Amino acid sequence: MFVIEQPRLEPAAIPGIAHATFAGAADGLQQLSVWRQTMAPGACTPPHSHACDEVVLCLGGRGEVHIDGQAHRFGADTTIVLPKGKLHQLFNVGTVPLETLGIFAATPVATHLPDGQAIELPWRT
Amino acid sequence: MFVIEQPRLEPAAIPGIAHATFAGAADGLQQLSVWRQTMAPGACTPPHSHACDEVVLCLGGRGEVHIDGQAHRFGADTTIVLPKGKLHQLFNVGTVPLETLGIFAATPVATHLPDGQAIELPWRT
Repeated sequence: MFVIEQPRLEPAAIPGIAHATFAGAADGLQQLSVWRQTMAPGACTPPHSHACDEVVLCLGGRGEVHIDGQAHRFGADTTIVLPKGKLHQLFNVGTVPLETLGIFAATPVATHLPDGQAIELPWRT
Repeated sequence: MFVIEQPRLEPAAIPGIAHATFAGAADGLQQLSVWRQTMAPGACTPPHSHACDEVVLCLGGRGEVHIDGQAHRFGADTTIVLPKGKLHQLFNVGTVPLETLGIFAATPVATHLPDGQAIELPWRT
């Protein structure tokens, strides 16, 4: 199936996160995974990295990404570039849900904590 | 630079196409290229393929993708999945611009006509 209706976001097992996988290995891809997410005000990811390049498009809200000990603010219509292996942590620093599109150059998407431990993500990657 | 303001779309050298590169090799990536495009009513791409997986998110308008001799219609909030090497041709079949986000698992993005001839795209891929 080459054309797919985009699924609705559903609450994920990670508190504060709603998620929908728009495309990935189950759709015939070998190199891309695309996710739509919202993060609740005050929520954040753990510090983590991926074994592939990632691009996040911010669609709405106010976020902050921490990289190499520095905080970078972002809002709607910004692009966050996260090269393969770069440790990062994302925060919703606003008062409304942080709306994002997450784009990954792998499927499934290998994800690790700073100590190298693999994170089992609770959605199809 | 990890956070990038998204550039405005500019008319491309290909008639009917406006384009902005949101992320790619120039931003420190090695595996992803992300483009925002509009295609004018009546316009289409040539039949072509890429040497990487592609995902197109339709943000607005009415499009059609031709694959393996079949036409697939799509509109806003649909995802088009184009596995590596799959020949495809995109058409705007509506009356307003076709609004898309193009996601590629390579940077630069190698693009070929059906006879194998490389296409030199007139934007940063």
